[in-house]
Amino acid sequence: MFSIRDMRLGEGVEWTLHCCTLLALLPEGAALPAARLAEFHDVPGPYLAKHLQVLSRAGIIESVPGPRGGYRLARSPADITLLEVVLAVEGEEPAFRCAEIRRRGPSAIPANGYPKPCGIARAMWRAEEAWRAELAAYTIGDLLSGLAVDVDPRAALKSAAWFQEVLRR
Amino acid sequence: MFSIRDMRLGEGVEWTLHCCTLLALLPEGAALPAARLAEFHDVPGPYLAKHLQVLSRAGIIESVPGPRGGYRLARSPADITLLEVVLAVEGEEPAFRCAEIRRRGPSAIPANGYPKPCGIARAMWRAEEAWRAELAAYTIGDLLSGLAVDVDPRAALKSAAWFQEVLRR
Repeated sequence: MFSIRDMRLGEGVEWTLHCCTLLALLPEGAALPAARLAEFHDVPGPYLAKHLQVLSRAGIIESVPGPRGGYRLARSPADITLLEVVLAVEGEEPAFRCAEIRRRGPSAIPANGYPKPCGIARAMWRAEEAWRAELAAYTIGDLLSGLAVDVDPRAALKSAAWFQEVLRR
Repeated sequence: MFSIRDMRLGEGVEWTLHCCTLLALLPEGAALPAARLAEFHDVPGPYLAKHLQVLSRAGIIESVPGPRGGYRLARSPADITLLEVVLAVEGEEPAFRCAEIRRRGPSAIPANGYPKPCGIARAMWRAEEAWRAELAAYTIGDLLSGLAVDVDPRAALKSAAWFQEVLRR
């Protein structure tokens, strides 16, 4: 099949940002196992577990051992940017990959004729910098503040009930 | 295989931006067939042809019929933004897709409890707006101006020779 459209973020970005937001709501000292995070978001447990391992390796969340163990945020919500989470999940590589096609074909010259990156790549990467800057300026703490304004009281109550039940187990 | 990294622009973006830049260098009234554009960039002809059809449908380039026909820009280089080319090739859909996972699981409430888009989606889309704004502010004309400064005279000479030969055919 001919497909040219692949600039899509994986669902892992949505899942992990929701998980970080939920972990930010945990009371001091508490943790949530991967299975509970999957349950709350109704997403496939084993697949979510892989993403959580990635976040853990990136130092965004950390695992607490023991019967009441699980994951918690490794830092304060205000110290975790959306950019960190997105790059941990999607990789640090830029979305635009320059294959240096300017060096091919009839106008090709020796390598020393290309001291600077291609202008097309520079323009594309500049746009990615703007995207990264925006995500770097917004934190899990900001998501929490937004949630406080936006969330419907019924959903807040149901979340609180779930938390109490799960943390009592 | 477990893969969570798919936020990559296709090679079609690089190819089509290079093609638009080359077409912007054409003398008035001239056109280049898809096969010549593929030759100049040393990329697979049939695959590039698909991308050129996409640009043509988007009104960025237009095809000129006849023995000396081919493609030319449909508008002035200064009127074609990088954003138009990228969205034509990659599609208009945002890179971040919100699956509304907040509506699942134990905190789910009826649909009227979610009057606004999820804060996570809003933050992700805001970052995409910054990316789009950057690409919308930069045109094929700007790429041409950059080329005039950056291109090695040897490559410029070879390009000019190729142009003369191809347009004489």
